[in-house]
Order: sequence, then structure tokens, then C-alpha cells
Amino acid sequence: MMNFTTHPFDAGDDDRFHEECGVFGVFGAQNAAALTALGLHALQHRGQEAAGICAFDGTQFSTERHVGLVDDNFTKPSVIARLPGDRAIGHNRYSTTGGAGIRNIQPLFAEFAGGGFAVAHNGNLTNAMTLQKELQRRGSIFQSTSDTETILHLIATSSRGPLVDRVIDALHRIEGAYSLVCISEKKLIGCRDPLGIRPLVLGDINGATVVASETCALDIIGARFVREVEPGEMVVITEDGIESLRPFGAQGSQRSRFCIFEYVYFARPDSVHKGTSVYNVRKRIGAELAREMPVDADVVVPVPDSGVPSAIGFAEASGIPFDLGIIRNHYVGRTFIEPSDSIRNMGVKLKHNANRAVIAGKRVVLVDDSIVRGTTSLKIVQMVRDAGAREVHMRIASPPTTDSCFYGVDTPEKGKLLASRMSIAEMANYINVDSLSFLSIDGLYRAVGEARRNNEMPQYCDACFTGDYPTVLTDRNGNSNVRQLSLLSDVS
Amino acid sequence: MMNFTTHPFDAGDDDRFHEECGVFGVFGAQNAAALTALGLHALQHRGQEAAGICAFDGTQFSTERHVGLVDDNFTKPSVIARLPGDRAIGHNRYSTTGGAGIRNIQPLFAEFAGGGFAVAHNGNLTNAMTLQKELQRRGSIFQSTSDTETILHLIATSSRGPLVDRVIDALHRIEGAYSLVCISEKKLIGCRDPLGIRPLVLGDINGATVVASETCALDIIGARFVREVEPGEMVVITEDGIESLRPFGAQGSQRSRFCIFEYVYFARPDSVHKGTSVYNVRKRIGAELAREMPVDADVVVPVPDSGVPSAIGFAEASGIPFDLGIIRNHYVGRTFIEPSDSIRNMGVKLKHNANRAVIAGKRVVLVDDSIVRGTTSLKIVQMVRDAGAREVHMRIASPPTTDSCFYGVDTPEKGKLLASRMSIAEMANYINVDSLSFLSIDGLYRAVGEARRNNEMPQYCDACFTGDYPTVLTDRNGNSNVRQLSLLSDVS
Amino acid sequence: MMNFTTHPFDAGDDDRFHEECGVFGVFGAQNAAALTALGLHALQHRGQEAAGICAFDGTQFSTERHVGLVDDNFTKPSVIARLPGDRAIGHNRYSTTGGAGIRNIQPLFAEFAGGGFAVAHNGNLTNAMTLQKELQRRGSIFQSTSDTETILHLIATSSRGPLVDRVIDALHRIEGAYSLVCISEKKLIGCRDPLGIRPLVLGDINGATVVASETCALDIIGARFVREVEPGEMVVITEDGIESLRPFGAQGSQRSRFCIFEYVYFARPDSVHKGTSVYNVRKRIGAELAREMPVDADVVVPVPDSGVPSAIGFAEASGIPFDLGIIRNHYVGRTFIEPSDSIRNMGVKLKHNANRAVIAGKRVVLVDDSIVRGTTSLKIVQMVRDAGAREVHMRIASPPTTDSCFYGVDTPEKGKLLASRMSIAEMANYINVDSLSFLSIDGLYRAVGEARRNNEMPQYCDACFTGDYPTVLTDRNGNSNVRQLSLLSDVS
Amino acid sequence: MMNFTTHPFDAGDDDRFHEECGVFGVFGAQNAAALTALGLHALQHRGQEAAGICAFDGTQFSTERHVGLVDDNFTKPSVIARLPGDRAIGHNRYSTTGGAGIRNIQPLFAEFAGGGFAVAHNGNLTNAMTLQKELQRRGSIFQSTSDTETILHLIATSSRGPLVDRVIDALHRIEGAYSLVCISEKKLIGCRDPLGIRPLVLGDINGATVVASETCALDIIGARFVREVEPGEMVVITEDGIESLRPFGAQGSQRSRFCIFEYVYFARPDSVHKGTSVYNVRKRIGAELAREMPVDADVVVPVPDSGVPSAIGFAEASGIPFDLGIIRNHYVGRTFIEPSDSIRNMGVKLKHNANRAVIAGKRVVLVDDSIVRGTTSLKIVQMVRDAGAREVHMRIASPPTTDSCFYGVDTPEKGKLLASRMSIAEMANYINVDSLSFLSIDGLYRAVGEARRNNEMPQYCDACFTGDYPTVLTDRNGNSNVRQLSLLSDVS
Repeated sequence: MMNFTTHPFDAGDDDRFHEECGVFGVFGAQNAAALTALGLHALQHRGQEAAGICAFDGTQFSTERHVGLVDDNFTKPSVIARLPGDRAIGHNRYSTTGGAGIRNIQPLFAEFAGGGFAVAHNGNLTNAMTLQKELQRRGSIFQSTSDTETILHLIATSSRGPLVDRVIDALHRIEGAYSLVCISEKKLIGCRDPLGIRPLVLGDINGATVVASETCALDIIGARFVREVEPGEMVVITEDGIESLRPFGAQGSQRSRFCIFEYVYFARPDSVHKGTSVYNVRKRIGAELAREMPVDADVVVPVPDSGVPSAIGFAEASGIPFDLGIIRNHYVGRTFIEPSDSIRNMGVKLKHNANRAVIAGKRVVLVDDSIVRGTTSLKIVQMVRDAGAREVHMRIASPPTTDSCFYGVDTPEKGKLLASRMSIAEMANYINVDSLSFLSIDGLYRAVGEARRNNEMPQYCDACFTGDYPTVLTDRNGNSNVRQLSLLSDVS
Repeated sequence: MMNFTTHPFDAGDDDRFHEECGVFGVFGAQNAAALTALGLHALQHRGQEAAGICAFDGTQFSTERHVGLVDDNFTKPSVIARLPGDRAIGHNRYSTTGGAGIRNIQPLFAEFAGGGFAVAHNGNLTNAMTLQKELQRRGSIFQSTSDTETILHLIATSSRGPLVDRVIDALHRIEGAYSLVCISEKKLIGCRDPLGIRPLVLGDINGATVVASETCALDIIGARFVREVEPGEMVVITEDGIESLRPFGAQGSQRSRFCIFEYVYFARPDSVHKGTSVYNVRKRIGAELAREMPVDADVVVPVPDSGVPSAIGFAEASGIPFDLGIIRNHYVGRTFIEPSDSIRNMGVKLKHNANRAVIAGKRVVLVDDSIVRGTTSLKIVQMVRDAGAREVHMRIASPPTTDSCFYGVDTPEKGKLLASRMSIAEMANYINVDSLSFLSIDGLYRAVGEARRNNEMPQYCDACFTGDYPTVLTDRNGNSNVRQLSLLSDVS
Repeated sequence: MMNFTTHPFDAGDDDRFHEECGVFGVFGAQNAAALTALGLHALQHRGQEAAGICAFDGTQFSTERHVGLVDDNFTKPSVIARLPGDRAIGHNRYSTTGGAGIRNIQPLFAEFAGGGFAVAHNGNLTNAMTLQKELQRRGSIFQSTSDTETILHLIATSSRGPLVDRVIDALHRIEGAYSLVCISEKKLIGCRDPLGIRPLVLGDINGATVVASETCALDIIGARFVREVEPGEMVVITEDGIESLRPFGAQGSQRSRFCIFEYVYFARPDSVHKGTSVYNVRKRIGAELAREMPVDADVVVPVPDSGVPSAIGFAEASGIPFDLGIIRNHYVGRTFIEPSDSIRNMGVKLKHNANRAVIAGKRVVLVDDSIVRGTTSLKIVQMVRDAGAREVHMRIASPPTTDSCFYGVDTPEKGKLLASRMSIAEMANYINVDSLSFLSIDGLYRAVGEARRNNEMPQYCDACFTGDYPTVLTDRNGNSNVRQLSLLSDVS
Repeated sequence: MMNFTTHPFDAGDDDRFHEECGVFGVFGAQNAAALTALGLHALQHRGQEAAGICAFDGTQFSTERHVGLVDDNFTKPSVIARLPGDRAIGHNRYSTTGGAGIRNIQPLFAEFAGGGFAVAHNGNLTNAMTLQKELQRRGSIFQSTSDTETILHLIATSSRGPLVDRVIDALHRIEGAYSLVCISEKKLIGCRDPLGIRPLVLGDINGATVVASETCALDIIGARFVREVEPGEMVVITEDGIESLRPFGAQGSQRSRFCIFEYVYFARPDSVHKGTSVYNVRKRIGAELAREMPVDADVVVPVPDSGVPSAIGFAEASGIPFDLGIIRNHYVGRTFIEPSDSIRNMGVKLKHNANRAVIAGKRVVLVDDSIVRGTTSLKIVQMVRDAGAREVHMRIASPPTTDSCFYGVDTPEKGKLLASRMSIAEMANYINVDSLSFLSIDGLYRAVGEARRNNEMPQYCDACFTGDYPTVLTDRNGNSNVRQLSLLSDVS
């Protein structure tokens, strides 16, 4: 899900794209909430701002939603004890700073006339605002700016009868990217948008069913991977088993357009998507890069941590030694503010320090996953030069990121993306490297196991590299989205 | 407003009825939020659990809602600075402990298709649950158990066009007691239910209009009392002035049934209702009591603080000296728990201590405002006896409270009211006094200036003394009211 | 005890002198900490800033010290459970705002070579700074600005052997006012300075011994009053009983100079000092005042709450009716800040509102306990006039307060005391009353039961009225007292 | 510094030794406190429990001490603004849970008769308790269990005159390991114990002098490394420059016994000690290990993060490919509690997950820095086996840790060290590996650049591997160290 009001980029964190959410659900397991907490812990890289869990014990829905890391909020026995039941869903949120963001912590819960219903959403609707205005005219009162709330009002006001029919009714009205996990009093529902832009996998633990954004969330609880929920598929889990529905047409009738950036950066390296290890894709990316853009150098240095697998792949393919030439300080707080003007430029050293013993006098290949606005690359290159590097060659483990994402990833506006404003030569000059190369789009498709990109019918959503958006973007040209939020209940 | 789910009685505080809310609004004054904070401070006796203010600055509605006293939350310049604008409404809440109560802090705010709208409510609807179920079936999602939210959904889904028409549409569907204060982008609206059960007064400060539950809230800001909002009246304040509407029929067509307990206990003694000083009513009650139920004694001792004016009146009428025979400790926290079993019965002494120098060897007349469950009376009488009183005569400044209130006052169930279970003789025996007398119902009506109670058409709502409820009680025989709350936005 | 660094006057609260502390101790009772919490609750009027309890269970000393009211911190079973043992001492602190004040919460505890020792102190040493400098030169490291810490270092560095001897050694070096309550592993010690300036009483509850600042702290736990600890007496309670020591000479060799302001304002009206009810003293003060300074008027109105007993006494003696012409709002937070400039002068109405029904058109006698800086009197008189009083006559239940206190009472500098700067006529003009009268010093002595003040050997400490200080004031002319505080342990 | 009372091992974190502190100081730089915050950030790996800074502005010492990470407390401009001045010292603390630990946050500050003095201490005194008892008998009152407070009392009670002489006087009485950084009103003092067990380096930034535990703290502020403070050296920095004193004899007269475990695990890999890069030492350790204990395998997998450099060195020397076979989740909270019994054994997966794509079917060499209690090794091996490893060979980058540290490192008691209880074969069996090898002690000395260990006069402190303690351990056989803490000031 994504905020309507703002489209922020967390400059304070680092100069990268940010995944917006992770989802998890389990049906039929004792300690469902505890399992969900573990699953969310494994998915923490998909959203660190806030997390929530909603559980149902046969009588009562219980919800806990907190700002902060899963571990800091959902590991106390007292919190888990307030979430009884054998079914639960959970959500990690990467979010903007500020109050509005806090109001949007998921899962959202609604009491419909037919009973309670909770939803957790990864992705972003591209027509949510348009729908919201229509619903308001009809008398719906919105509590948040969340596109996810739109889904709830669509279900609440559906003219259909049974819950599953009402949900399908709502799905037919929304556009964009979504992997949804929902619980009602009788059901756990998981579904993916028709293009399967965001991931969702199905697992099994001692007969209980699990749905999760990534396989690493199955690993942590010891669940067995069963299969992916398919694009356009809705799985409905009840005490009678799993039913697979196809609200958008028969199996296989949908083209898949899975987000290729999940392989490049978002997913955890130990996850497996579409049968392919993310770690191995990244090593192959490094090898492709070494082949496409070789360089004569003394040492391959990853920008930690995300550049490490590609750097290992690059080093193996090129025969140049791999070394930790940049040391990352993992104790960086989320809110580090450079304490005063006179020491302003020390910021980058909070997170990274050059390891002079590895770098001094060397020709260095720096491997990073992407360049977004270029601000971090600029500082890292300078730091490596200050540590005595003789040459600095930057190799980027993806094509230039030229376009914003509207499918649930937090990206700067197009105009702030370095690659939308500069040629590669200009970028090399800007970040002050001896050479700069990006992986080709076909090289990226080869790394994920395709022969090349099928330009007529691309196998993945690669809009951030190509501007080729696989859905209409209804809200995009709408009017100002800044709205007042209703306050029927919560406390500021 | 009142909670659907529970009908609590705060045994931890004291053995009295509790007012549930105070409301305040101002239109056209600089520092509207600061004035509202002062007004809520003056109305703090009507609700100490939580408070909120909503202000509008011509562009934006701003809301602050906090658990705790007005002074502890709304006196910081930073809080007031977050509430800009020349119009604002505020609300004090007396509430149950627990999360559900916290969700219900007012004012509630909704963004309608036609713009923002905030409401603060004193009173209680008697058909809110019935309406809520109907609205849910139509697709409205409820965020709270508050009957006030019901009003908002009725306005949102009204088929009428202009806002005032939509509000009137909603008023025609609700039953019970309500004094409402609302703001929209253009208007401040104040209205009272057709019987005027809860109070609402109109004031003026340098040309700005004020509405408030009691005149003491006008005094604190130096506003001039203009008149009461009349039963069944809706006043609509805009930049063009004040308009008086009569949604329920022409002026004077409504019988007034103002809550007589406001005079007995709820209202501040320095407030004036219906042209009559509350302090003077209480002194006249004491005088009536002395005349109706005289006693030969040495000293008149009030149960502080509410019994003081009646005791002064009793002393003046009887000629028996008035003295502070019980000293109240005002530093009692809201949450005092008797620290251990072995010192269990010390509880009453936390709040009161007998002043032995006044009491020892004396025949004491104790004057209190009412007996609810009798637990406090029992302990106070024992404390006075332990301090050496020779005789203890209890005089109660109201008739026996035999029935619950459904109009926004927090009362125990009827079965827990001492006077519903015992005769006066039994009560005297139970609380261990030498004599016990209550004021007669006609005595009470005389104290407020009537000749007697008009039993065909009572001049006041006195249901807690008579069981004569002036409205239908639609929800009263409904099914279980325990519901799950929707969570579209707020953080637990 | 008193701070060295500042001599504050809490203008935010009200225009009165402030008692600085209450002390309590119990030996030999189960639930010693719970009893201490109750005792401190009863003594809360002597200090509202912070409170602490130290208990000993035969092995371990446990201490809890918290900012805020006793009820808000010491009524949780979990807190009491952390204070096991059958002996405990406690302390209430009235203090300045700011960090330094927080560091000074008592009881203070020290581990001496011979074992643990805790102390709670009401009063103020007049040579503490002089002693502190001497101790520092010797190598003592001070953690606080508290004169009480000086006592601990004196005991620690005493050349004597047994603990009681070391304490007596320390007492011989300190000057000023002190009622101390201490516990060691074997003993509870209570002692008063040679003049008995601050109060300390002895009680008994089922064989356990209690010491406390006032008798109301005995009442709350149901303890029996035994006697006062005498001036210059040290009582040492062990398992073998109570021993009375006279470090400053035989019983009766000390003149008593008990603080007469305890009767006027500090003590709770239900307490008894030197065999005399405080409430009755105050009523007699009112009667004296009516006799000394009669006035032709319609109503006697107390400035609540402290003026009430004197006003009752004045009304009885004068025959003028007593009425609550000023209503006090007890919900005033400690930190109320007037929210903005444009409403600046509303401040006084936060705490008091004139009861127009009682006052309008009347000749009013206002009775208050004292005038300190006059700022509150000024506003109250104006408020009473605004409510329509025809005449306002102020009667003050004590002589003019012309001098500061150095014995543990928080007073403004002499130059800020209205009576030190103006004649009574000037004061009357300044606060805008038709007449102003103070009780004479002999009238005050009569009210406490003396024939008159013995000017050669005054029976009480009345320095704030007379400037006649009963001890030397060694530190008074010292250099700047602002010091840096050692930080060996605590967390800011 | 180290706690007397407890010698904890944080089982909740991981199964490793823990450094106890980092220190930092700067003299003569604008923004001294901001530079200190950055330095402490770089030294955060040496202590994550709490941090403190004390600054002096020519008039006033200011101290801020907070529980939590440097970034979370010392990056707010408001905090830095409360620490004005051009000189400051800071301290990071690794500590036990519980109140006593919180009381010990450094720097400690004392006001001596001659002026203020603050100290920050890395290390542990081995005769602090003995000294403390002696000081208590003399009248010193201790506020903490910190051996650092002992140093302050020794200085306070010294019979010498000038401050530097008093400090030297104190140094001659203490035993054990210490790197101290102190400020007085005129001086910044840095000193190391005669054996130089703990590190301390000297740097320069634009003419201002810096002292710090490691060179990485110089890097972050852009300071130039000048030299190490030598064993037994005291550097005194004033406005006139740096003076080097030798309280324990002329330069070179002291043998150095620097802690060799700093190279193995404690120090950051980008730091340089004694002219040698920590990262390069670790790579050489990996290479030595590959030579001493070769193994036929398919992949070298580090236990992240500390095992990575040794694993790279092992891979390079052995020719076996290096891969990330274990993925570390950096979002682990400090307080993760396994939420319930039924999912108890999932704990290890919170921090690590096997990367099945790298491991399945492979013969794996796992490289870790040390084995302490073995609990983590056991779980990691099982996890790697569960992911399909064909063989698991564990190689440890240090000799077996058989003995506790008494010099400021948090280690379990000897009896809980796996290597003190089992032979290597038993350990291999216990953790269930196909082979287990440790680096030899001479291999470790070779990696740090020596030919071998000089058993007559060892070049390093290696007591944790050899039991050969370089100082006497006076307190070690003392009686119970559990003591009560004085509470002269702080708030619980």
C-alpha cells in the first residue's frame, strides 16, 4: 500500500529504492500470532517503520499495531498473549515520517454487517483516489489516506452477498499492484493482482497454511514451501482446505509481470522467487557485469551490504580478488542528524568507513546494486579516494533507474533520479569515477534466466528501468491529493 | 455521549453519579483554541478522563485529543499552536477505563464529500445501536462504540444536499439526550434535544459567539451570558451572524425536561441554569431538608466538597453551627490502590479524615448530596463514629436514587442502587446512623423554584428518582451490545 | 531540607509560603512500606514535587524515589513489593523545578563502612555550605546540593565508633532546623533540633513505633498518638524498645521555638500540635480577627481552601453570615501556562471563580491566611469586585509577613514580600480593598493559647513576622552558592 | 571499567566475549561534544548499553548520560547544545541489564575542593574492591559499584597538592587494566596502565588533540593518527600543548602486554593497532588456519559478521570458493524473547538463516572467530546441516578460550567456557561437526607479526587462551562482592 498524500524518499536512510511492505498470514496453527511475529521479523527488510498483527480466536479479533521494529514490539509474551487464536495476519510497513504515516499501520480491520474482516496489503493501487472520492460521495467516511482502506469500503458497500463475492467485486474495481492477505471469521484469503507484480508464496507447517511475501519467512518458522500464489489467483483457506479461485480468468490466462527489482535489491538473498535463488541471481548479475564491462583492477570491493553477492560474482568471473574495502557500521540509528554545520560532511562516515589497508594504492572496482539520486555514490567514491585508491571503477548491478515506481516502492520523482537527468558519462563525471558501467537490460534478464527481454511482451515489470508501465495509472494525473483525515476514534 | 459496550461505575473514585461530558465552542475569536482550552478547564468537573479540541483556520481542520486533564495537555503553547484558527470546539470526557474508552475521545471529525465536519456531544442516544446496525448493513464502517459516530454516519449518508439539512435529517432519526456542538468549514452549530435534557448556553465575547455546557465556562474567558440554547433549538453561527432553527417545531412547542440532578450535584455551584444559581438551589435544598427533617444536634458537618452548600443552608435554617468535621485530602490520585490486604480498610481515609476536635462528643448532622451504592456513606459514618461522635444523623440533599440514567450519566445498574433495594429504615440501619432522611421530590422541586412536581407533565427529567423516563429507550432491551471495533487507522 | 543553589518561589502555584517537606518512619510493622506510603499520602500537603521510601528487610535496603505525587507512584503493588521489610522511612519534597531539584529526592542512603544508613529530613541547616566546603577539602565527594547529604558525610567521617555516637557527633556540628528520621540495619532514629522548630510526633500501631511530621499521618494508618518528640531529643527505636537520648542536654533544658506558621497555614487542619487542634487555632484566629478588626458587612467569604476555618471563626464571632463566595477549581494542573498573550489576565480564574449569586451587591469580608507578594490578593479582589461586590474588606489571619524563612520553608526574598515594602495602608491601596487588617502578633499568640508573645524569650519561632531568628545564620552571608554537582552514578 | 557485583554473560545477545567500553576525548576543538558523539558512534561496537559525554566550556561542566545507542541519544541538536565547550570526553558502555548497571554510566564527574574532574575508563581494576573498603572506612561514600568511582575517591583523598600529582598518586594505588580519559578545568588527561592492556591512541584534527580507543574514531571525524599512547604513559593536554609523563618509569621500561583478543574479535576491522591493520591480521589468521588445519571442501562460509575476514583469508589460502552461506538479519532487537514454548528452537533463525542455494549438497568449511560456551555453534551447525550440507568442518580463528578475563572484558566464568570443560574432540562431537580445529597460539602470534609466543615474556596479554595473567588479581579471592549502593542523589 502507499500513501496518497506524499511520495517521500527517505534521504536520511540511504540513496536507494525502498520496498514498502511485507505481508504474512497463517491459518490453523497454535500460536498463530507468534508465528506471524517470526514471519514479520524475517520480512523486516521490506518495511521497518511499523508493524501490526491481527488474530482471530473463533470469537474475537485482536489487533496490535506499533511503530518500530517487529522485535521491539512483538516479542514480549504480553503482546503475543493479547493476540490469541489459530489464525493471524501481519504486516510490515516502510513509511514516511509524520503522523499520517502512523495512522496507516496495517492490518486494517473493519466490522462489516456480516462480521469482522482484516486486510494486509503489499503494493499500491493506481486508482485508489478516484475510487475514494466516489465512495465519499456515497457516504463512506475515510479514516486514513491508505489505498488499503479503499478496498475495505469497496467490500463494505458491495451489493453482493457472500464475503468472497464481495471481495472479488472489490478486486474488479481496483487497479495497480497488490498482494493481499485477509482474515474473516472463517477464512484466510491471499490474492495477487492479475500481473503478479508483488510476490506472495504459499507454505505449510504441520498442516497449517502459510502465506508470505518471501520464502525466508517460511524458513524462519520451519514451514515447507508449497508454491507461489499465481498472478490473478485468489486462495481461500478454510477449515475444509485450500480453494483456488481465478477472479480474472482461467489459470495461465494472465501474463506475469513480476517486479524484477525484487531480484536486484528488495528480496533477501536467501529467498527464492519463481524457483530461482535471489543470491544466485545476484552472483550471476556480478558475473554478467564482469563479462559486459570488464576492467583491469587490483581488488573488487562491494558497497555493503547489498553489493556483496554481485561483487563476489564479479570477482569470481574476473579473477580479481574480493576484499572488504568498506566497513559498514550497523549501529546507525534511523534518526542520525549531523550534529552541527561545522561537521556537516562527516555524514557518510557514520555508515561506512574505508578500510585503508585494503584500498591504499590499489585500483578498486566498486560494486553497488543501483544508483538512485547519486548522493551516496558521490560520497563513497570520495571516501575511497581519500583512503588512497589509485583508480576507482564503479560497476552497477542493474540498468540505469530512469523512472519512478507506482506499484508500492518508495522512489523519488523521476526528475530526481540521476539517470533520468544525465548520460552515463555525465554520471561518471558527477560521482568522480575513472569508469562507470551499468548492467544491460538484457544482461539483467539473462541473470534471472531468460534469454533476453521480450520487448513485445516483457516477462517482468521493469518500469523503473524502461518506463514501460504494465497497468494504467488512473490517479497519476489527478488533482492535489492532500486531504484531511477523518478522526472517528484514534488518539493523537 | 456514552459507550455502548459497558455501563461502568467508577468504584475507585467515589460512590456518586458521574456526569459524562462537557462541550464548548467558539466562532470568530482569535485564539479560539486557547479560549476553548480555558472553557474546558472550567468544565473539567463534567469529565476528567480525556479532552479534545478541533479548530479550523479557513483551510485546515486540526485536532488534538489526549487522555488526562485539560491542564496537563492543553496548556502547552506548542499544543495550542497546532490548533490555529478563529473557530474551535472542545470536549471533556468522563469515561471508563480501558482501550475502548480511549478510542472514543471527542471531538470526532469526518471528511464528507462536501468538506470536513467535527462534533462534540454531551448526552446519550437511546437508539444508537439500532441505527448503527442499520448503517452497517448499508456499508458504513464504524470506528468506535460511540453513539456520536452514529450521528456522523447519519449525516454522511443523508440523501439531503446542504449540510444543515443533512444534520437536521440526522437529528430526526436519533433519540435520547444530546447537546451537540459542531463545526464545518463555514459554520458553528449548537443544538439541544427536544427536551433539553442536557444543558447548553450561549455567550458573547467581543462579538465572537460562544456555546458551552455551563455558564462557568463563560465566566473564565470573560464572556457575557446571552441566553440558553432552548430545547429543540439549533443555532447556526456563521460570519453573517446567528440563525436560530427549530427542526422539531416552533419555539415553545417543546416541553423542557432539563436534568434536575444538574442542580443537585453535576453543575458547578457558581453556574446558573435556567436563571437560577446552582449554589443558591443547593442552599435552599439544605434549608428545605432542615424544615422537612429537623434534628436536635450540636454541629452540621458536610461531606466535602459537594455537601458544603446544602450543609450551610441546613445550618442557617436550623441554627445549628456549621463546622468542617471532615477534612478532604485533595491529593488523591485517580488510581490509588490499597497497597495490601492487611491495610485494606484504610481506603476511605485516603480522601477524608475526621476532624476529631470538631466531632468528639458531639451529636453530628452529616449532609451529603446523594446515596448511590452506599459504600462510601458506610465508611464515612464509621469514621465519624470512631472520632467520637455521640450521635450521627445523615441528611441527604436529594430524594432516594432508585433508577439508572440513560441520558449520558454514568450510573450503576438499578440493582446496585441502595435505594432500589432497601427502605429508608433499612438503609439507615445499613449505614449505621441514628437517623437518615432524604429530601422529598416536592422539596427538591421547591428548591429549584417550582411549587411542586407536576406529575402529569413533570417540569424536569427526574428519572433517577422516579423512573419516569421522558423518552423511549429503543436500545435498552436490545441484544448484547459487545462489538468488535473497526481499526482503519488508529494505533494501539 | 533546602537547596543551596536556589531559593525559589513557585509563582506558578500561588502566592503563599510553601512547606518544604514531610517525613515518616515506622519500625516493627509488616507492610512498613505500605504504611509509609499512606503516611506520606496524608502528609502530601507538605511537599508535592517528589517522594521517596527506603525500607530494610533485615538484609537489604531498598529505595524508591519518584517525581510526582505519592498516589501516582507509591500505590502500585509492584512498587510496594520492591520495598520489603518491617521498617521503612519516607519523605515528601516540595521543590524547585529543574534537574538539580530532582537529584535531591529523599531519603538519601549511604553505605558506611559499618553498614547502610538512610535519612529523611524536614527543615534546613543554616551552616551546611560552610560544612560542605570543609568536607570537600578533606576528600568527601558531594552528589547533591542537599544539606541532608552534608549530614551523611559528617556521620561517615566522624572519628567516633558506634553509629549513634557518630550521628550525635554530626548533630553537634550542624545548625538550623531539622526533624530527621533515619534507619540503619538495627535502628530507627528520630530527632529534632534543639529548638524543635519543625514538628515530629511519635505514634504506635499494634506495638510498632511510628514517627511522623503530623498527627494526620498517624490517623490515616490508625496509629495511636503517643507524644511529640521533644526539642533536642533523639529517640532510638530498636527491637528492644524506644530509648530517649538528649544530645544537647537534659530534658527541659531546651527552650522550644516551634514554627508558629505551622498553625497559620502549613499543617493540616485535622492535625494536632503541642496538644492543640490546628482547626481550632484557625477558628480562634478568625474570632480574634473579628474582635481586633471588626467590620460592618453582609457576608464573610473565605479565600479557599486555607481561609475557610478562619472565616468560619470570623463569621461566628461577628454574626455575619458565612458563604462560599469564591469557588475553587481543584483540577488545576501544576503547569498551567496561560496559552497566549491575548488572554493573559485570565490566569487567576483558572483556580478561582467568583460566585456572583453570593457576592453581587454585597459588602464582602474576604478572609485569607496571609499576604506574601500580594499578586494573588490583587487578582482575587478584582474578581470579587467584577462579580458586583459593593465593598471588599480583607482580613488576614496572621501578622504581616515581613521576613524570609531560613528553616525549611520556601519563601521569597525579603525584598519581594509585600509587607516588607509597604505599610498596611499602602498594601490596602495596592490590592484595592476598602479596608485591610492583619491579626496582631499577640492576637496570634492568644489563638495558640498563650497570653501574649514573650518578647524576651518568644515561645515560638515567628521570624517571618518579626525577623527574630532563633539560630545563627552562618551560611547567609557566604559567597555564591552555585556549584557544580558530582555525578558518580545517576542518569540524566 | 567493570561491575563488582556481577560478572554477567549476555546469553541473549550471542555466544561471544564482549568488550566493555570505548573512550574518547578531544581538547581545543569547536563542537567538542559533536566530535565526541561521532567518535563514540564509531566506537559503538565496544559498548551498546549506554553512553555519556561530559564537556567543559571554561566555566561549567555539562554531562549527558543515556541508556541506549549513541545515535539514539546524542544526535539531537538539543542534546549537543546542552554540552557546550571546546573540550569533552565520552564513554560507551557494554553492561549488564538491571539498575545497577544503569547507575554506572560514564563519564563520572566529581567536584573536588580544587574544581571539577570527569573520567571515562576502559578496562577493569583488579584491586578496586579492596581499595573501596579502605576508603569507606576513611569516610568516603560510594555511589556506584564502579571501579572508576574508586579512582575518583583516591584522587579526592590524596594528600598531594596539584591535580596531576593527585592523579599519579591514585594510579600508583590501582592495579589491573585501564585506559583513562579525563578532563579538569585546564587539562585533558589520557593514560594507560603500565602494561598497556587496553588500547588508546592519539590523534590531531586541525591542531586540536584527540584521544580514542581505536583509530576508526579518528577516521570518522577526519582526524590524523599521531601515535599510540604508550603503556604506562600519561599525556596531559593543556592550552600550552601536550606533555608526556611516565609515572611508572622511563619510556621503554614497561613491557607491553596488549590484549591479543582485540585483534581476534573486539576491534573494528578498519582499525589499526600497533601499526598493524586488524583486517589484515584476521585475513592472515584465516590463512594460518588453512595452512595449519587444511580440509577438502567445496565452499568456505563465514559465520557473519565477525568470521568474514578470516573466511576470505582461508578461502584465498586454500583455493576453496568463498560464499555467503549464512545470511544475517541485522534487524534483531536486543530483547528478542522467543514468544512461546512451542516455537522455542526457532531462536537461532532470528539472527541467521542458511542460504540453501549455496550450501545444499556441499562440503562446507564454517569459519568463526571463537567458541565461548558453544551454544551458538551448536545451533548454527544444525542449521547448516538442515539446509543440506554434506559435511561441516568448523575452523576457529583463535586458540581455545579456556580462561576468564579480568581486564574489562565480559566473559563467562571459567567453568562455563566449553574449552575449559572438553577436549577438542569432545567439542567437535558436542557441536556435531565432521571436523573442528582451532588456530594454534603460535599461529595467532604469527598472524600479528611475531615469530612465535615468547613464553618467558609474552608479547601480548593472552590470558583467555593461556591462563597467564600479567597482573596480580587482588580482589579475585575476596569475599562476596554484593553491596548496597549509596543513593545520595539519583532517581530510580
